[in-house]
Amino acid sequence: MKLQKTNRMTLVEQVAAQIEAIIESGQWPIGTRIPAEPELVRELGVSRNTLREAIRALVHAGLLRTKQGDGTYVCSTSVLGAALQRRIQQSNILETLEVRDGLEQQSARLAALRRTDEDVEKLRACLAACDSAAEANDMDAYVEFDIQLHQAVAEATHNSVLIDLYEYMTEAVKRSIRELVEVACCDSHQKVHHELIEAIIQQDERQAVEAVRTYIEQFKEKLQQHLEDEK
Amino acid sequence: MKLQKTNRMTLVEQVAAQIEAIIESGQWPIGTRIPAEPELVRELGVSRNTLREAIRALVHAGLLRTKQGDGTYVCSTSVLGAALQRRIQQSNILETLEVRDGLEQQSARLAALRRTDEDVEKLRACLAACDSAAEANDMDAYVEFDIQLHQAVAEATHNSVLIDLYEYMTEAVKRSIRELVEVACCDSHQKVHHELIEAIIQQDERQAVEAVRTYIEQFKEKLQQHLEDEK
Repeated sequence: MKLQKTNRMTLVEQVAAQIEAIIESGQWPIGTRIPAEPELVRELGVSRNTLREAIRALVHAGLLRTKQGDGTYVCSTSVLGAALQRRIQQSNILETLEVRDGLEQQSARLAALRRTDEDVEKLRACLAACDSAAEANDMDAYVEFDIQLHQAVAEATHNSVLIDLYEYMTEAVKRSIRELVEVACCDSHQKVHHELIEAIIQQDERQAVEAVRTYIEQFKEKLQQHLEDEK
Repeated sequence: MKLQKTNRMTLVEQVAAQIEAIIESGQWPIGTRIPAEPELVRELGVSRNTLREAIRALVHAGLLRTKQGDGTYVCSTSVLGAALQRRIQQSNILETLEVRDGLEQQSARLAALRRTDEDVEKLRACLAACDSAAEANDMDAYVEFDIQLHQAVAEATHNSVLIDLYEYMTEAVKRSIRELVEVACCDSHQKVHHELIEAIIQQDERQAVEAVRTYIEQFKEKLQQHLEDEK
């Protein structure tokens, strides 16, 4: 009896880990409805109860969400991202931004030290895309390229923990970024982008951090203004 | 049938959330053996199966660990901490330290801006404790007070997300800190501590960040040396 119980736990854990690995690999992106129970039971070669328990564990971890009478959907691609999201929901946006700012400054610093030629190419492409969107006054496109640009800076650090954490935090503040960039003047925003990318290309660590800090200060002022206006 | 299934899921979720809240509150610290099944069944007023499933979800989330034939133990006090720990285990120590360094510089900056009189008192007490331990050549005590000092700097930011993330990352690199501080020369280490705390007390943002960067550089050099020696 005891042995069986242990085996069962291990099996549930194994199935949960398997499904988690599929989700983390990006094979089932956010919003995907996962295959129906009979199909998963067949593919994983486990009992329906084991599968159900594994899915409940993943619902608890924040990776899956079950919609009544519909099916089970992927709602986060990583346990860490989901846990961070939950933690951030309990705090205010300024606190979250300050943490992201710390990661962003560290990103700029390390990107300046380590960017490869390939990174430079990608950074220039993101910058050009922001320029075009700003010129065309296409705000939706600008917000998207803005996020891509900052993510490209993080990627130029070649530090996978930093890249992931920065991405999760950006995901968590995405809505507020959208609101704020829409308020923000594109010209001054783009000017700082150019300074940042130029500093990274020139491998000027200090200047890269300086650009991020200028950007953050501008952003913070607007955010505080925005929060006061909302009161 | 369908309704029953949904109710059951919600109930498991509720029980898991309840136990999670107890653990996150610190009522059951790490290493605590949680009460036996009959006791929890009685206290929570749920069936044994529901309780077991909730516990499995928490095992999956990394909060609990079941030791065969012994009991279930608390192994992490937060889901975010456990998720971060898992992510960090997949990466190398240098990557983790770089992220923590980013948070540490941001902490120093914000602590300099916001430290209260109470914070100053705590920072001075931690610094004095490090001094005494260094003088007495008591390495175990020094490592403990070193961690407390840096945590006190994070606390002086009054940013709860930053405080938590910094604590989780420190937890994750604790063993390597111990190893390294033991190798490190206490005198030069303590000198930078004094500079950092003095800068925070004087509300000198730049100097505080500078002290952290000096500290990080020293640490990184030693770590790289250490990793090479181990090869």
